[in-house]
Amino acid sequence: MASNTANDRVETFDLIIIGTGSGNSIPSPALSDLKIAIVDDGRWFGGTCLNAGCIPTKMFVRPADLARNVREAGRLGVSTAGVDLDWNAVRDRVFGRIDPISQGGEAYRDSGEPNISLVRETVRFTGTHEITTTSGRVLRASQIVIGGGSRPRELEVLPFGDTVFTSDDAMRLESLPGRIVVIGGGVVAAEFAAIYSGFGAEVTQINRSPLFRDLDRDIRATFTSAGSRNWTIRTGVEVAEATHGDAGWTLTLTDASTLEADAVLVAAGRRPNTDRLDTPAAGFDHHEDGRLQVDEYQRVLLGGQPVGGVYALGDISSPHQLKHVANQDARIVASNLVAERADAPLTANTLGPVPYTVFSAPEIAVFGATLDEAKAAGKDAIEVRQDYGGTAWGWALEDTESFCKLVVERGSGKLLGAHIIGPDAPILLQPLIQAASFGQSVKGLARGQYWPHPAATEIIENALLHAEEEIQK
Amino acid sequence: MASNTANDRVETFDLIIIGTGSGNSIPSPALSDLKIAIVDDGRWFGGTCLNAGCIPTKMFVRPADLARNVREAGRLGVSTAGVDLDWNAVRDRVFGRIDPISQGGEAYRDSGEPNISLVRETVRFTGTHEITTTSGRVLRASQIVIGGGSRPRELEVLPFGDTVFTSDDAMRLESLPGRIVVIGGGVVAAEFAAIYSGFGAEVTQINRSPLFRDLDRDIRATFTSAGSRNWTIRTGVEVAEATHGDAGWTLTLTDASTLEADAVLVAAGRRPNTDRLDTPAAGFDHHEDGRLQVDEYQRVLLGGQPVGGVYALGDISSPHQLKHVANQDARIVASNLVAERADAPLTANTLGPVPYTVFSAPEIAVFGATLDEAKAAGKDAIEVRQDYGGTAWGWALEDTESFCKLVVERGSGKLLGAHIIGPDAPILLQPLIQAASFGQSVKGLARGQYWPHPAATEIIENALLHAEEEIQK
Repeated sequence: MASNTANDRVETFDLIIIGTGSGNSIPSPALSDLKIAIVDDGRWFGGTCLNAGCIPTKMFVRPADLARNVREAGRLGVSTAGVDLDWNAVRDRVFGRIDPISQGGEAYRDSGEPNISLVRETVRFTGTHEITTTSGRVLRASQIVIGGGSRPRELEVLPFGDTVFTSDDAMRLESLPGRIVVIGGGVVAAEFAAIYSGFGAEVTQINRSPLFRDLDRDIRATFTSAGSRNWTIRTGVEVAEATHGDAGWTLTLTDASTLEADAVLVAAGRRPNTDRLDTPAAGFDHHEDGRLQVDEYQRVLLGGQPVGGVYALGDISSPHQLKHVANQDARIVASNLVAERADAPLTANTLGPVPYTVFSAPEIAVFGATLDEAKAAGKDAIEVRQDYGGTAWGWALEDTESFCKLVVERGSGKLLGAHIIGPDAPILLQPLIQAASFGQSVKGLARGQYWPHPAATEIIENALLHAEEEIQK
Repeated sequence: MASNTANDRVETFDLIIIGTGSGNSIPSPALSDLKIAIVDDGRWFGGTCLNAGCIPTKMFVRPADLARNVREAGRLGVSTAGVDLDWNAVRDRVFGRIDPISQGGEAYRDSGEPNISLVRETVRFTGTHEITTTSGRVLRASQIVIGGGSRPRELEVLPFGDTVFTSDDAMRLESLPGRIVVIGGGVVAAEFAAIYSGFGAEVTQINRSPLFRDLDRDIRATFTSAGSRNWTIRTGVEVAEATHGDAGWTLTLTDASTLEADAVLVAAGRRPNTDRLDTPAAGFDHHEDGRLQVDEYQRVLLGGQPVGGVYALGDISSPHQLKHVANQDARIVASNLVAERADAPLTANTLGPVPYTVFSAPEIAVFGATLDEAKAAGKDAIEVRQDYGGTAWGWALEDTESFCKLVVERGSGKLLGAHIIGPDAPILLQPLIQAASFGQSVKGLARGQYWPHPAATEIIENALLHAEEEIQK
């Protein structure tokens, strides 16, 4: 344990938790006898998901969806003289609800529990079990949890500023710009492109590679074609040059074309906050992209070996930038903090598969391997596809593009992957997650339960029946 | 085997199938060596679900929902100058799609397969293995499947006519009446009340008992209060007298109040078509409500014993008037027809639990016991409730009334019942159906799989966590 500060500033805790996202769930009655410091220098208390991520975005997604669905519903016999969305009203409603939760959480952590101290400062590691704050406080603990999250990547050509913003600010805009360029090809870019266009802005999404590069190719193609009905999508290009004048931004792209915009959302990936925390100074092992390396018990590694008492969770260590993964990491860490103190066996984090969902227009929900990935992994796998349009619910939607694909191992009937694009994809995926998580084969899965007619779940039922048939060929 | 007709009109088949709803799915390659007669005197080929039930209603439900959701979305920041729904356009789109499917199915059955004959006549039983048509044809077979369905009950005080119609005609109206009274308190009445009011009609639903009398009391109360925002609901009353004049119908109710209406939809239950088929003439056993009695192999009973070769399926024998149940019955019958011929063991119909869904406003999806029912059955059961509003998705909906209730056996953790009211209830129920069908306890069910954040399925995840906690108390 190293220290480079005067002893009189040293404060000793039993447990230090860095980050108030999923890490904030760790203090529990089981830890009430510990002296705990919770550290966060974030603009808001509670982490990205609550303040600038999953939760508020969905509160914008819903009205945007409603407006878009009605505008698109001519084919269903619905006509409207116009649907208006009041950006300012939605923003104020959303943050009128979110901000008090964040503030209440902060006040409680600050003064609600005698054993817990809140440290609202930037910190850096000055030892494996020691952090130093910008004001010079030195905090030490035998157990440290690093849940410091990630932040949006900045583009050299477009530094962040008033009209070049990240998802942190994307929902707090003072008014909705008329022309917005969204840079990025992942979930954040796709969700904001749908929100802004749903609210009536003219949106252009640009990305250097195809959108959702890592997803199944039919999902990618369908997303791009369906999304293009509501906003402009340009792939294979980057911003080469950006100039700002009276009329806003002029972006010159790598194909020499230009784009005019009032504002730019940069959602070109996120980087782990290990640099800000200076975790390399503690000697910890890092992945090439800057994430901390952890073992299956969420213990941080140093020289390939776990460091006693030091854990990480969420975006700062996980390959998945997903709140449900960070929460699961936090449960494992919470359990192992107690076990370690009692010299009891630790719990491994083996939960899977990990679902990935996109609340854009359309919605996407997937887990596991594509057919190509399964084959590359040496599996004898098949793929089946069930279109929404082949079910009664698809008829009700007059849907002609949504589908569910399953990738199944031939012998075992094991679900290796599921890939859904279309309305309600995130909830339609759950019976498949459940089957895969509990080791249920597709054999007998459809016929071993009722699927209420004519609900959208018949899409899943039929996909399973096709898969069962296909693996018997 | 009795016969009361001249022998020259007798035609012998290997298999007679009465009804072209789920029964129409029975002919398969496994039966291609049989001489089969398919009998239906219905107005449409293909049964109720396709022509006048689940499928077309959902095609009306969807645009009605869209329009209602936008009208109600002021609290989400959505405003509209007005949303119009074109009844005639929707009707023509729906039946422009449904009718050709029905007609194509009929043409195929009529002439598409050399071993199958279609008989489009009313028939009555004149023996256990014999039916006689109105034109005097006598059809005999060693195997008979009775899938003759059910039909709406008529009210003495309001006989069916041009402006007093059943669900058969409810979607084919020439134009949408301005004021519609819907009589009934079950799924058909609730779905049409939501459709008509969504399309802009002034709807009054009346029922002699509470709506959804057999459902959980909180589900009933929430449905009634939420439904009342979109149409008028009056319970505890019946129509005592009905008169028709120039201004339409005047209905005098049992509480002496009156209602004016342009049209009345009578959806006060359905009766099995055993009377029309004169199944009592064959001596078969019947329930008090007129349904055929069957054993667990779907064999029709006579004097408490199964009649060899005679099966029933769907509404004519089932306590559940549900298409997914009729389809399951048909699969069991199809399998047992073959097994019986091969002298092989029959398959029992043990699939459960049976889900029941309502696509009204709001939606309902349930299976199994309420807490009261579980206790009355001697179970040591607990109940938990998770409101949509307690999850991130519920925040996005600004939902204050929807919920999921679970009834769980304390010792085993077995799911005895699930009761959901709110958006997407029919698809949210599926992971619970899956767990109950495959004997999964609630113990470890939530934490043994990922639930993508912040999807609506977090409502189910949280309900399961509460249940797990509650049974450990």
